[in-house]
Amino acid sequence: MDFEITILGSGSATPMRGRNMSAQVVKINSEYLLIDCGEGTQYQLLKYRIPHSKINYICISHLHGDHFFGLIALLSTMNMLGRKNPLQVFGPPGLDDIITLQLRYSETILHFPVSFHVLLNDTVECIIDHEKWTVHTIPLSHRIRCNGFLIREKPKPKRLVRQGLPASLSLAQIALLKQGIDLVNENTGDTLYLANDYLLPAHRSRSYAYCSDTCYLPERFEQLHQVDVLYHESTFLEEMQIRAVETFHTTAAEAAKTALATKCSTLILGHFSSRYKELSPFLLEARALFPTTFLGTDGTTITIDERLDQDPYVHVQAH
Amino acid sequence: MDFEITILGSGSATPMRGRNMSAQVVKINSEYLLIDCGEGTQYQLLKYRIPHSKINYICISHLHGDHFFGLIALLSTMNMLGRKNPLQVFGPPGLDDIITLQLRYSETILHFPVSFHVLLNDTVECIIDHEKWTVHTIPLSHRIRCNGFLIREKPKPKRLVRQGLPASLSLAQIALLKQGIDLVNENTGDTLYLANDYLLPAHRSRSYAYCSDTCYLPERFEQLHQVDVLYHESTFLEEMQIRAVETFHTTAAEAAKTALATKCSTLILGHFSSRYKELSPFLLEARALFPTTFLGTDGTTITIDERLDQDPYVHVQAH
Repeated sequence: MDFEITILGSGSATPMRGRNMSAQVVKINSEYLLIDCGEGTQYQLLKYRIPHSKINYICISHLHGDHFFGLIALLSTMNMLGRKNPLQVFGPPGLDDIITLQLRYSETILHFPVSFHVLLNDTVECIIDHEKWTVHTIPLSHRIRCNGFLIREKPKPKRLVRQGLPASLSLAQIALLKQGIDLVNENTGDTLYLANDYLLPAHRSRSYAYCSDTCYLPERFEQLHQVDVLYHESTFLEEMQIRAVETFHTTAAEAAKTALATKCSTLILGHFSSRYKELSPFLLEARALFPTTFLGTDGTTITIDERLDQDPYVHVQAH
Repeated sequence: MDFEITILGSGSATPMRGRNMSAQVVKINSEYLLIDCGEGTQYQLLKYRIPHSKINYICISHLHGDHFFGLIALLSTMNMLGRKNPLQVFGPPGLDDIITLQLRYSETILHFPVSFHVLLNDTVECIIDHEKWTVHTIPLSHRIRCNGFLIREKPKPKRLVRQGLPASLSLAQIALLKQGIDLVNENTGDTLYLANDYLLPAHRSRSYAYCSDTCYLPERFEQLHQVDVLYHESTFLEEMQIRAVETFHTTAAEAAKTALATKCSTLILGHFSSRYKELSPFLLEARALFPTTFLGTDGTTITIDERLDQDPYVHVQAH
């Protein structure tokens, strides 16, 4: 089963060639979530061959333009290309107004249902409770109301070893073993088969946290404890730490400190200021504190393996 | 003196790789006008090395997203990069609301003055009256209120042949000759020097018309009479003429008929539907009626020479 993140944009605030605005897609099993939707996101989806028709959830962190200016265009394209499936959009108060106003002036009627869910950021909130995974908000601290998003698979059942099963067992008995229930002789009460003899450990319940935009925020360490992959903004290098504080952003070193404190497996840096043409200093600065750090440049994919015997189980591939 | 158009986007409605949404820059002398501003226009400006800081006028034809979704992002970038110069924005009612609402929710204050000028489209209107050129609206017929734009240099003075001037003339006398006034002996009234002996014909007063989006519109032929370059949308080929009528768009053949009727020098086609991957049929269809037709693909530049002895005086260069 897939758990794959594709970075669509690694820039911040002002554009530069090769760095689109914030957006990324999380593919979890057969579902696609879009997190943030800066200008040009629909072009990036085309470029990286991600079908927007499969996106059923869009989470917008905050209303700075580099995180949502592409949303109205994406919705318009979905509409023109005949989308009928419902879409759920999560974002701060105002997002609904902004989209609705533009639809009204262009005399556009969406032919698919869109539900806007208003996110505050005073507390952690479960915003999607899917059969197999959840999305919680991560209240961040930025100049305006902003949430990150934590996507976490629900605990998985242990796995049955079908090869070793006695041929005499009925489907109902197999189902009991799968649930971890031992089979007993109904007359004598004797145990016939121990469930644990036929079960392997459950696959990993994977998790991914998106933290952008925010200042360095120790208050969030606990919520992010042992997340598999932490995407953390690093708008600046440590040399501009004062500017980072002033603008409620983070440095690469602070992102690495967050990674260390949360004991995540892998740190992905992004949201780089356009003042930095060269990104290797970000990697150097963060890796000095947290070695398994990678750059989340445009087109980078991160896959998280669910098998427990894989080491490493997180794979990062630059485009 | 420059008169150059750069096509930033040749697509329509839904995106495809290599075809950005409608936007183009007209450079006239040292001034830059942006016409339409579809999503990603600021990236296209970067790509074609056109400094947004020099754009002082933005004209938006209508409020379908492929013509204006990039405006808020461009304004934001101008602001973040410290623009102080005033900007004039021309567009339909509602554009101001859309921009203002987004600035409000993102808690952004623009640090440069923006004047919004509301354009109706019931009549031709002079919207910019520059010392050397004007911009008039071209009322078009689309599904929602829409204007094209006609940019025309004002008539230029005849040019003085400095080499042949008698050395005895004062600066004041030269100025008179330049204005076409003959020099006379004040006492006798005799003509001393005929202005026309020292004057060459004026340079060409160049003109460019942008017509998008619109159905085929003979009512506009008169306004566009003898324009140098006509940019006309051709969303469809003639095989889809019924669809063109239904959606208030134009076919390549209809754009060519418009070019013929207006007696323009050069026709540029654009706003191609994404159903057409290959554009050569557009050129074939239009050139059968109007040979000096070119495709206005992304990055195409069109220069119009002001010298009367240049043939051809319009040059089209694909990127």
